[in-house]
Amino acid sequence: MAYPQTAFASTAIHADSLVGRRRQAVSANTLKYQLDVLKKTGRYDAFKLQWHPVYDEPPLVWPIPNHLFWDSDVAKWIEGACYFLKQQALPEIDQAVQELVEMIRSAQQSDGYLNIHYTVVEPGKRFTNLRDMHELYNAGHLIEAALAHSDLYRNDKLFAPILRYVDLLCANFGPEPHQTHGYPGHPEIELALLRLYDRTNEPKHLALAKYFLTERGNPAGVDGQNYFAWEARARGDDPAKRPAFYPESQCLWYHQAHAPIAEQKTIEGHSVRAMYLLTAVADLCRIESGTRSPNLESAMYTLWNNMIQRKMYVTGGIGAIKQWEGFGQDFFLPQGTDEGGCYAETCAAIGVMMLAQRLLQIDLDAKFADIMELCLYNAVLTAMSHDGKGFTYVNQLASSDTDPSKREDWFTVACCPPNMLRLLGYIGGYIWTRDDSNNNVTVNLYIPSTLEFTANRKDVRISQQSNWPWEDRIRFTVDTTSEDLSLKLRIPQWASSFELCPSCPDAVVDKGYLTLPAAWLSKNRAFELQIPLKPRWVVPHPSTEQNTVTLARGPIIYCIEDVHNEWVDDHFKGVSIDIGASLAESVTKDTKTGDEYVSLILEDGARNIKPETVCAYPSINAADLESTVSKADTIGRLHFTPYYFRANRGGKGHMRVGLRRF
Amino acid sequence: MAYPQTAFASTAIHADSLVGRRRQAVSANTLKYQLDVLKKTGRYDAFKLQWHPVYDEPPLVWPIPNHLFWDSDVAKWIEGACYFLKQQALPEIDQAVQELVEMIRSAQQSDGYLNIHYTVVEPGKRFTNLRDMHELYNAGHLIEAALAHSDLYRNDKLFAPILRYVDLLCANFGPEPHQTHGYPGHPEIELALLRLYDRTNEPKHLALAKYFLTERGNPAGVDGQNYFAWEARARGDDPAKRPAFYPESQCLWYHQAHAPIAEQKTIEGHSVRAMYLLTAVADLCRIESGTRSPNLESAMYTLWNNMIQRKMYVTGGIGAIKQWEGFGQDFFLPQGTDEGGCYAETCAAIGVMMLAQRLLQIDLDAKFADIMELCLYNAVLTAMSHDGKGFTYVNQLASSDTDPSKREDWFTVACCPPNMLRLLGYIGGYIWTRDDSNNNVTVNLYIPSTLEFTANRKDVRISQQSNWPWEDRIRFTVDTTSEDLSLKLRIPQWASSFELCPSCPDAVVDKGYLTLPAAWLSKNRAFELQIPLKPRWVVPHPSTEQNTVTLARGPIIYCIEDVHNEWVDDHFKGVSIDIGASLAESVTKDTKTGDEYVSLILEDGARNIKPETVCAYPSINAADLESTVSKADTIGRLHFTPYYFRANRGGKGHMRVGLRRF
Repeated sequence: MAYPQTAFASTAIHADSLVGRRRQAVSANTLKYQLDVLKKTGRYDAFKLQWHPVYDEPPLVWPIPNHLFWDSDVAKWIEGACYFLKQQALPEIDQAVQELVEMIRSAQQSDGYLNIHYTVVEPGKRFTNLRDMHELYNAGHLIEAALAHSDLYRNDKLFAPILRYVDLLCANFGPEPHQTHGYPGHPEIELALLRLYDRTNEPKHLALAKYFLTERGNPAGVDGQNYFAWEARARGDDPAKRPAFYPESQCLWYHQAHAPIAEQKTIEGHSVRAMYLLTAVADLCRIESGTRSPNLESAMYTLWNNMIQRKMYVTGGIGAIKQWEGFGQDFFLPQGTDEGGCYAETCAAIGVMMLAQRLLQIDLDAKFADIMELCLYNAVLTAMSHDGKGFTYVNQLASSDTDPSKREDWFTVACCPPNMLRLLGYIGGYIWTRDDSNNNVTVNLYIPSTLEFTANRKDVRISQQSNWPWEDRIRFTVDTTSEDLSLKLRIPQWASSFELCPSCPDAVVDKGYLTLPAAWLSKNRAFELQIPLKPRWVVPHPSTEQNTVTLARGPIIYCIEDVHNEWVDDHFKGVSIDIGASLAESVTKDTKTGDEYVSLILEDGARNIKPETVCAYPSINAADLESTVSKADTIGRLHFTPYYFRANRGGKGHMRVGLRRF
Repeated sequence: MAYPQTAFASTAIHADSLVGRRRQAVSANTLKYQLDVLKKTGRYDAFKLQWHPVYDEPPLVWPIPNHLFWDSDVAKWIEGACYFLKQQALPEIDQAVQELVEMIRSAQQSDGYLNIHYTVVEPGKRFTNLRDMHELYNAGHLIEAALAHSDLYRNDKLFAPILRYVDLLCANFGPEPHQTHGYPGHPEIELALLRLYDRTNEPKHLALAKYFLTERGNPAGVDGQNYFAWEARARGDDPAKRPAFYPESQCLWYHQAHAPIAEQKTIEGHSVRAMYLLTAVADLCRIESGTRSPNLESAMYTLWNNMIQRKMYVTGGIGAIKQWEGFGQDFFLPQGTDEGGCYAETCAAIGVMMLAQRLLQIDLDAKFADIMELCLYNAVLTAMSHDGKGFTYVNQLASSDTDPSKREDWFTVACCPPNMLRLLGYIGGYIWTRDDSNNNVTVNLYIPSTLEFTANRKDVRISQQSNWPWEDRIRFTVDTTSEDLSLKLRIPQWASSFELCPSCPDAVVDKGYLTLPAAWLSKNRAFELQIPLKPRWVVPHPSTEQNTVTLARGPIIYCIEDVHNEWVDDHFKGVSIDIGASLAESVTKDTKTGDEYVSLILEDGARNIKPETVCAYPSINAADLESTVSKADTIGRLHFTPYYFRANRGGKGHMRVGLRRF
């Protein structure tokens, strides 16, 4: 298959679109801005292997040294930069990439080893704490950077040293008695090795990824113990010393290592780790199609379903719990810090998109693309400001005094900003699924863009033009001499109807896709798909006990912000909604940011109930509550803004997605 | 004032009443049963100061040794036993009390020190870990035991050694440079010292309690640090080693030591500690009336209000979080383990009753007695089986597979069963508030009982006869020659109306009490109060985001159990209620337990919505959800049982208090 990290190069995203504008912000601002941060913080020069004062600091999150992810911060920036450089000349960025690569090359040890911390800070201790120290995670990001780098530069300046490092890892880890029977605390290298295998066809790359994936969670990995438990004992760890992110001792589920993946029934622990891990599992299942383990594949779907059905926010965000940056129990989805938690980390939503895209390669079912779209337009895009200079790590559905809705320049653990960079760099690779074996192109995402490729020696050019997600008409033009090209168009699960013009009598909707047969397509090189975009009220599963409604329109989830609702002083905790009231749409051109979007206004359909006006000490008669509510202040016009656009216009940081319903 | 622990002796609780039957269960079974447990587990002989194998066990909850509370387990049993022995001869119990007292006397060190752990297990380390090691907590319970013992036996066999131990503590702790500037991690000694002061009038007893209460949370207690932080450093504690109950490092709020009490704004941390602490604060404020610190008093009400308004379950239970056995954030009140947590520890509800009773001594406002009643009939009585042989430590509002609704014989940390014993021993002291200065008796609780006392050299006998809380008529008879005795009768906040017969035209309701003037009372020595007991649906505060309704009748909160609703297989998670449907009452005489109560039946007013029938991936249109709900199975008859009576009749352990509402 073509991974989106390479396939993206065939797609040109139209500049004047929501995604196009965000990509422009990245190339105009983010790349340079993040480069400056890498330089300012010491990351840029870290592969020179000099001591840095940060290395002396006590860990903010014990036992993780604050600089532990620097390798990956650099690698992800290089990777993202390479994607942008592939479609645009950016000399300063290009020069920095080349300089960084030289530094990485120079940091490699004679045996191929390549890691800042274990070379500078704790030499001699490599591979003694796979559970906590992100050594293999960093290696995975270096592999991904090397793949992007060699794609762009067509040389092996980064690829060759990384292959040497991978050789070392292949020799060190595996099932043989002389090998280490471990696997990473933070998955990433597995998916990187499988992408590498796709490039190299080198069996040992597949074998190492498979070993990491199938050995993980083995209850009797070493000396009858789970590897992480054995390793901790071998290090002489005091069992009473718990990592700050462990809610209990020996918290193997934090790492998805409490059982072999094939035996796991619910998705648990750190959400980014879970997504990276399952992305690799999906890849392995696809690669081993036919010979693959049915248990592993069925576990993958079980875990996906558990996540989608019981552990995902209406925005596509995942992870309710701050302490372990991950999943709570089934249906535990409070909206914000002061209601029990909400994490919805940016990288986790990016991870859901990765996983959904991989699942589509196994089973072309639009339900996976629905989730990909939901995450992109909400949980992911909300994490970067319109100008690409402000980020969020956590994407709550409701702000609080503790955690107002606002953006940061950067984070100590800086995984999210460069992950956003990478994603927007290769986002074009998510739009389509190409199956050259039967000359089919599937449209998963409606992002204004043009795809160009050659199949069976014929050039194909497919363009989708629209003002999506604001206007409901998408105009397709297909330019090719191929007569057997067919198209599949995703009909979103949220769409109440759709219309194709001209009509295609033979078209059927199967697994969420409208298939346009080659015969029809060869006669209709231009056509229009209309999917009505009407505001609708959605609710989470009732078992979440969140008696809330959320406004949505097409793929966009809306929130209310204090900008345009200036009266708020309580993060909209008191707002209650009558979903029968009328809604008005208005096309808003935001003068400050230049962004244009559809805003929604609820007219006379909201009341503001201050918590202190309800005397539930500790309960109140149901009838008395109704009478209190009916006497509460009405809000004449409640202004709704797309959730992805929050925190772009200043304000006090009050924001809420789910609103109480009465 | 007369503490309830002494005042109870003037009250005879009628045997044929709910509370009377539970007291009979304790004297018939619990006292002996708990004595056997004390003997079997090693607690009984622990004051002999021999080594016990338990002392070698690793702690279940690091760093608390499993035997750390043994002193208090024995002391609380002695205390409770003395209350029962005061009203009933129980020779075997009496003999055990006397034997235990001899052992305690023999365990005292030459300087007065008295603690099992620091004499046997870690000699030489006394007072080095006030934060975790419960040394002063145990001392507090010994003081309370000594007070009860001397009241009963009229000798100082226990009182004298305890006074010697208190002398040592008074010398050791205090503001002087040579003294230790610490305070207990688990409050208890403060309230015990204030009760002791009430008996001794010894200023140093008051002074030590006051020191503990006002020094607590001093940010610059020792060397510019909080005492607990200083103490941990002095012990050489590794800061990365967190007690298992700490969700974060240096978690001072767990102990209510994050700020001086007078500056605390919200009630935080371990709920039992918070209640014991505030009980002592209330006592100090009452004792120092006039000279007292207005900040401390106002903080006490702020914390009480925060608890009642935002952190209390509809059952009167407090504490949502298992890890620290305590309070979550404002309005975070999920019902059970698999919905985000629910703890509602028995001892905490007993603590709320203690605090409410103390507040009534400062401000005779029925709102405090309302909470006392709510806790007693629900959060407290639910914690002991009908026969006094089964207990609960945690009192969730909904069961789960992880935590089914069932009872245990005993617990490793065995604070709750003997606390129940103590409370039921002196519960008579909670029924009335006597103010001899103006010859008034206030009726706080409607428990069938008779009060006898002498005031101004006149005998008074007041009896309340009823079948409360099942029948709504309470017949009072007053027998005295006193002409100036007045009565106040509490009109519960939940009562929609009341009637007095014969009527009293001069009676007014003030602060929740109906005052019957002496003139009327001297002419009406028998009268009847009727408070209608009708089923009603109550809801928690909407900010809890618990879209649930709960059935209540008078002071009783109801639940549904699998006994009588055998079809349940999901802990009633799918049940949704139409509160407009009709309810039937039925007097139930449970044949297995002999208990008689009013059960309630909802006819055709419930539906059962299985989570898997709602396709919210991750959201669903509000309208589609309504249509799904309307197609769900109806439940013909839903049987409701008083919450306090749950888990008395076997069954599968499925139970729920709050039911979703549609």
